Amino acid sequence: MIHNFNAGPSILPSSVFEEASRAVLNFNNTGLSILEIGHRTPLFEEVLNEAVSLVKELMQLDANKEVIFLHGGASTQFFQLPMNYLTKDKKAAYLDGGVWGTKAIKEAKRYGQVDVVATSKDKNYSYIPKDYAVPHESVYFHYTTNNTIEGTQMHSIPALSMPLVADMSSDILSREMDFNKFSFIYAGAQKNIGAAGVNLVIIDKKFLEKSSSSVPSMMDYKQHVSNGSMLNTPPVFAIYVCLLTLRWLKQLGGVAAIEKINNQKAAVLYDTLESFPIFQLPVPKEDRSKMNAVFTMQNEMLEKKFLDRCNEENMVGVKGHRSVGGFRVSMYNALPLSSVTSLVDLIKDFGNKYA
Amino acid sequence: MIHNFNAGPSILPSSVFEEASRAVLNFNNTGLSILEIGHRTPLFEEVLNEAVSLVKELMQLDANKEVIFLHGGASTQFFQLPMNYLTKDKKAAYLDGGVWGTKAIKEAKRYGQVDVVATSKDKNYSYIPKDYAVPHESVYFHYTTNNTIEGTQMHSIPALSMPLVADMSSDILSREMDFNKFSFIYAGAQKNIGAAGVNLVIIDKKFLEKSSSSVPSMMDYKQHVSNGSMLNTPPVFAIYVCLLTLRWLKQLGGVAAIEKINNQKAAVLYDTLESFPIFQLPVPKEDRSKMNAVFTMQNEMLEKKFLDRCNEENMVGVKGHRSVGGFRVSMYNALPLSSVTSLVDLIKDFGNKYA
Repeated sequence: MIHNFNAGPSILPSSVFEEASRAVLNFNNTGLSILEIGHRTPLFEEVLNEAVSLVKELMQLDANKEVIFLHGGASTQFFQLPMNYLTKDKKAAYLDGGVWGTKAIKEAKRYGQVDVVATSKDKNYSYIPKDYAVPHESVYFHYTTNNTIEGTQMHSIPALSMPLVADMSSDILSREMDFNKFSFIYAGAQKNIGAAGVNLVIIDKKFLEKSSSSVPSMMDYKQHVSNGSMLNTPPVFAIYVCLLTLRWLKQLGGVAAIEKINNQKAAVLYDTLESFPIFQLPVPKEDRSKMNAVFTMQNEMLEKKFLDRCNEENMVGVKGHRSVGGFRVSMYNALPLSSVTSLVDLIKDFGNKYA
Repeated sequence: MIHNFNAGPSILPSSVFEEASRAVLNFNNTGLSILEIGHRTPLFEEVLNEAVSLVKELMQLDANKEVIFLHGGASTQFFQLPMNYLTKDKKAAYLDGGVWGTKAIKEAKRYGQVDVVATSKDKNYSYIPKDYAVPHESVYFHYTTNNTIEGTQMHSIPALSMPLVADMSSDILSREMDFNKFSFIYAGAQKNIGAAGVNLVIIDKKFLEKSSSSVPSMMDYKQHVSNGSMLNTPPVFAIYVCLLTLRWLKQLGGVAAIEKINNQKAAVLYDTLESFPIFQLPVPKEDRSKMNAVFTMQNEMLEKKFLDRCNEENMVGVKGHRSVGGFRVSMYNALPLSSVTSLVDLIKDFGNKYA
């Protein structure tokens, strides 16, 4: 039994691995592999349509939302979005809450004016910036809902009047939210949605209308929407894995059900870490991510020992990102509570031994 | 037994399906799925490194060539290439040999001057344009080596002095060529290289130096090269399927060995079609593609009957592209000669019956 705490690509439900494995040999009893079916066949159209329907159902999207699957990851949206909405005389507002937000800002500046309304760079992005004003002429307000690297998460949706844009790569489908408040949501699939190599984009029809029509075809949101994610050959297998993962989530009871489990996982882990002073939690309680828990130890020797213990117990992906150090435990939807409790047992054992 | 003549996504070797299926459950006996391994781990780095090495070996690339795997398909390169190399005062030359070339031209015009040196549009792209002059100030000369939809293929490399750029999506690795003559080669994977959702790019170091440094990061070839295809999370599974397919090709004897088989497949199919006057071959002999054979019948009733026969015999993907009509038989590397001989038997039977 391996406990996979990878930050992404990350664990997916075992039933998804099993079904995907079967489909690579024989998809839906067609005698064909999912890898060799034509994308413009009813076989794949059904996959795509069901995946889109499940996203709408699970996120309770209203009739104004379009759902598309695009090539690439969130990094592509970092420039595709401003390429579509900004010009040198237009301004967008960005919240600089972590490494990914910073990258998004860098790309947006190529296309228009960027107002960084707040940043937590002063403390290595270990908290969520608060109390900022957003210029009302902003074409949109962009933020990252969950900062995978720094272990912070925004637990409420900013009450703003301009179109809201969110990079939800690392916490989409993990908690209930009024997703209809957003004009544009994007998320690389490789955490809560499926396998690496596809990007989920949800776009409000009114916001879509305002997108540029003079960008390259592959960057044109309107063309992707009107072609139903088939402007070119889509990443067939990656979309199929999304479908399997979405089906699993629905069967489990949907977003509300997984949120309860995610809350349990985060609570037991953070509570345990707090009870042992050898562990430090750099993120203040109110900003802690339920997807990625970041913690450190002051003693580097102990950090090494802890990592060794994790390796012995088949716990992978626990090492922190190089920019933060220490440890990062990712607890995406598919990570079972039992993996967290196993880690918690190890933490208790370790904490008692080196208290 | 299904005979898969799909134009792409298309058949891959059965051993690739089997190994990929196993890896989705348990990759290299790690106990982890290929879908859940971190991309910045030695596990995936080995996959990527071996895939790059095999491309270099199989294509006999010299030390001046960089090999990268990018998100998306050839359609992304249609704009990424001119975005990097053209400005309003620079000119590139394009050969307009088919639907894909036309799309590439459309995107290039957004960035600079485009000289369409020749076109076969007058005859629905059913032949390869010849005898054209390319302005020597062209930043590059772009052409499509094989026209998937129209069933034409360029059987020699143009002798030109400016950098050669080729879209080899549908015939890469199918025949021996001096690939080192090209400054830039790109190919969507879903025909001869692997599964949909990844793009192979081969770029000469000198040409790379001339690429723009003011494009978005994800469009920056230099950044992709210096980050070894890991500027962002790569499409892990799609690259793994490429590796398996490349290994299969090497084991088979490489490009020279597959070329012999491809020649046999094309010869037996075209010879048979030519021997029955009920079939028309729109492409003149010298321009016929060894990957995609296009043919029609004058009698629409017969076309329907022929397609029914193919369906009865479990031959899929035989219907022609909507822009050409009739039939298209794709014979990529992984299609066994036995599938072609089965189709040839059907053609003979049909041809004799309706002569």
